[in-house]
Amino acid sequence: MAAGLLEELMDSLRCLPGVGAKSAQRMAFHLLERDRQGARRLSVKIAESLDRIGHCVCCRNFSETDKCHICANPQRESHVLCIVESPADMLAVEKAASYRGLYFVLMGRLSPLDGIGPADIGLDVLERRFCDDAITEVILATNPTIEGEATAHFISGLAHKYQKTVTRIAHGVPMGGELEYVDSSTLSRAFDGRLKLE
Amino acid sequence: MAAGLLEELMDSLRCLPGVGAKSAQRMAFHLLERDRQGARRLSVKIAESLDRIGHCVCCRNFSETDKCHICANPQRESHVLCIVESPADMLAVEKAASYRGLYFVLMGRLSPLDGIGPADIGLDVLERRFCDDAITEVILATNPTIEGEATAHFISGLAHKYQKTVTRIAHGVPMGGELEYVDSSTLSRAFDGRLKLE
Repeated sequence: MAAGLLEELMDSLRCLPGVGAKSAQRMAFHLLERDRQGARRLSVKIAESLDRIGHCVCCRNFSETDKCHICANPQRESHVLCIVESPADMLAVEKAASYRGLYFVLMGRLSPLDGIGPADIGLDVLERRFCDDAITEVILATNPTIEGEATAHFISGLAHKYQKTVTRIAHGVPMGGELEYVDSSTLSRAFDGRLKLE
Repeated sequence: MAAGLLEELMDSLRCLPGVGAKSAQRMAFHLLERDRQGARRLSVKIAESLDRIGHCVCCRNFSETDKCHICANPQRESHVLCIVESPADMLAVEKAASYRGLYFVLMGRLSPLDGIGPADIGLDVLERRFCDDAITEVILATNPTIEGEATAHFISGLAHKYQKTVTRIAHGVPMGGELEYVDSSTLSRAFDGRLKLE
């Protein structure tokens, strides 16, 4: 069958998230017809990334080196540790907030039903970091989902064991949001977390 | 900069059509975190496709061999030639219709404003095929856009020069469509192209 390789290319493009049969076909034709240079670069970069990108030994984030550039940066405040679920979450915090401390990336969340326990999200590595006296505050920035909350609760217990200050990022009405359209659980959380104005 | 390769991967993923910064980030993390095997396969398949997929000498469609599997198939009716703009169009015809003839893929359409002339869409190759007496009917299946119509008109003239029967696929109300929601140019075309019922 002569069209075999083209079909294999379309099929392999479907490993990308959000790409179905129709998009894969469009992508394959685009790469072959309009952007052979970009396609060559993509192929090389995927292979290079697979070979060279591993996990940082300190924070578990993706890194080309043993220690990622944030953990290795002496300018970051080493007494605060922000705990997030994924590298994407870390990037979002890094982009938005003026946070200057360190991170720990769980690469998942506790989910006993899926068989994901403390060791799978690196809580043994995290506990070893808690032994380090330099860290004084642990900021829990896991997602406000059931699993995320449970994970935050679990890590909170662990951090308290080592006498760390534990904080959770605020949840409430998003900026620019309208009360009328905010769901009731967010609104009730916003009332629970209300702050006194001085 | 330690995060360099990851950013290069995200950047190179943006060569895919419809992929912006956010999707590229999601894809990169997905490949590294969840589907390293799929990523490896994708990298290999892109490279292989670039090296091995060229154009069929008869119909200009993508092919691994000099002659694509449709042109090389002796079971196809060699007296009809269907002319389409792109490989995707050809696949659509192949999937939907019970068409058993041959194809010619223009890989574009006439567009003087963009500097795309007859030679760029392979009309010299097409004219050489018209010399072949085996072809008796030419079916024009270019898109019903201004450029597609102009291309069809141009090829029609060329085919008439070689005494071929030239037909254009029907345009009108799509099956399952409602007259109320069909645009007026489609509707007017449907009236112009009305067929007598026996």
